[in-house]
Amino acid sequence: FKAKHKSPSRIVYGNRGMTLEQEINDSNQYYLEREIAVIHKKPIPIQIVDVDYPKRSAAVIKKAYFKTPSTTDYNGIYRGYYLDFEAKETKNKTAFPLSNFHDHQIKHMKACEKQHGICFTIVRFVSQDELYLMPTSLLFNYWDNQAHGRKSIPKKEIEDVSFKIEYSLQPRIPYLKAVDLLINQIEGDNNE
Amino acid sequence: FKAKHKSPSRIVYGNRGMTLEQEINDSNQYYLEREIAVIHKKPIPIQIVDVDYPKRSAAVIKKAYFKTPSTTDYNGIYRGYYLDFEAKETKNKTAFPLSNFHDHQIKHMKACEKQHGICFTIVRFVSQDELYLMPTSLLFNYWDNQAHGRKSIPKKEIEDVSFKIEYSLQPRIPYLKAVDLLINQIEGDNNE
Ligand SMILES: [Mg+2]
Ligand SMILES: [Mg+2]
Repeated sequence: FKAKHKSPSRIVYGNRGMTLEQEINDSNQYYLEREIAVIHKKPIPIQIVDVDYPKRSAAVIKKAYFKTPSTTDYNGIYRGYYLDFEAKETKNKTAFPLSNFHDHQIKHMKACEKQHGICFTIVRFVSQDELYLMPTSLLFNYWDNQAHGRKSIPKKEIEDVSFKIEYSLQPRIPYLKAVDLLINQIEGDNNE
Repeated sequence: FKAKHKSPSRIVYGNRGMTLEQEINDSNQYYLEREIAVIHKKPIPIQIVDVDYPKRSAAVIKKAYFKTPSTTDYNGIYRGYYLDFEAKETKNKTAFPLSNFHDHQIKHMKACEKQHGICFTIVRFVSQDELYLMPTSLLFNYWDNQAHGRKSIPKKEIEDVSFKIEYSLQPRIPYLKAVDLLINQIEGDNNE
């Protein structure tokens, strides 16, 4: 009986062909308009080689290359906290491959955490259409040991230590609820 | 006697044909390497129209347009504080023209301050080669009244309420010293 794998939220509000990035951008717009948080996707860095400045019309970039980003995709501020995160999807059903991450993204998140920023990854398992806010502790653990260990994080472990995000109508991805739980967890750890 | 206009810092460490942006980027690199702060210049947003994917070589953007940025130039984290700022130069000797700012930059800084971010502008008067960290209070005051008032901020007022930044050898623009003073001022105001 296949239908039981589809959660109600999937049926009612779920991903309708939008990319995870589009859904997060929409959610950020929702949060911005309601003065809940100011979070933006960073533009893709490019190396501009040639630009045309035609008279009476806008400048046209005629030649440019994509550069490797030195940071993560998203950052901003939410009730005094600096947030910094990546959004990643996988079609893998049982694990999240580490090849989805780049070394500079990991380094950047580690540097931000040293300054007391709140870092995480929003992970989407495409086939189950499940979303998790994965803490950096799990990611760094697998990342730092991948030379000797496995090259992916088991979904089971992600489920165990992450905060599940349920799709909603407005915003589509209410990830700040999960951020609240993450902040409570981090601040609880610091007070122990 | 012209030489008296040149401060010692100008002679020893001053701007050597680098743009303000380059100098701030270099300073951010210095802060990053020493784990003092994680601040990055945001890439310029572009609208990509046409991309070529040649075999065995990197993708080439063949046509693209510049988009209006929805935020400021710089943001990041410094000892738990979210920083967000613009860097602006003027050749005007007596005032800073408001035309250097765009409405979306002002709106963005106001939104960030509602979330308790630390916002400011690094202003450079090119002919005197003087740098100031200008608080948003002064900027917003002139900005919000420009329809009925003057279209520029007098340099004298900037000098009075800003934190002066002196060039140094490493980093070239040690603006985090001024940020420390700004944070003290903001937190002092909140505790009154
Ligand atoms: Mg991404
Ligand atoms: Mg600028």
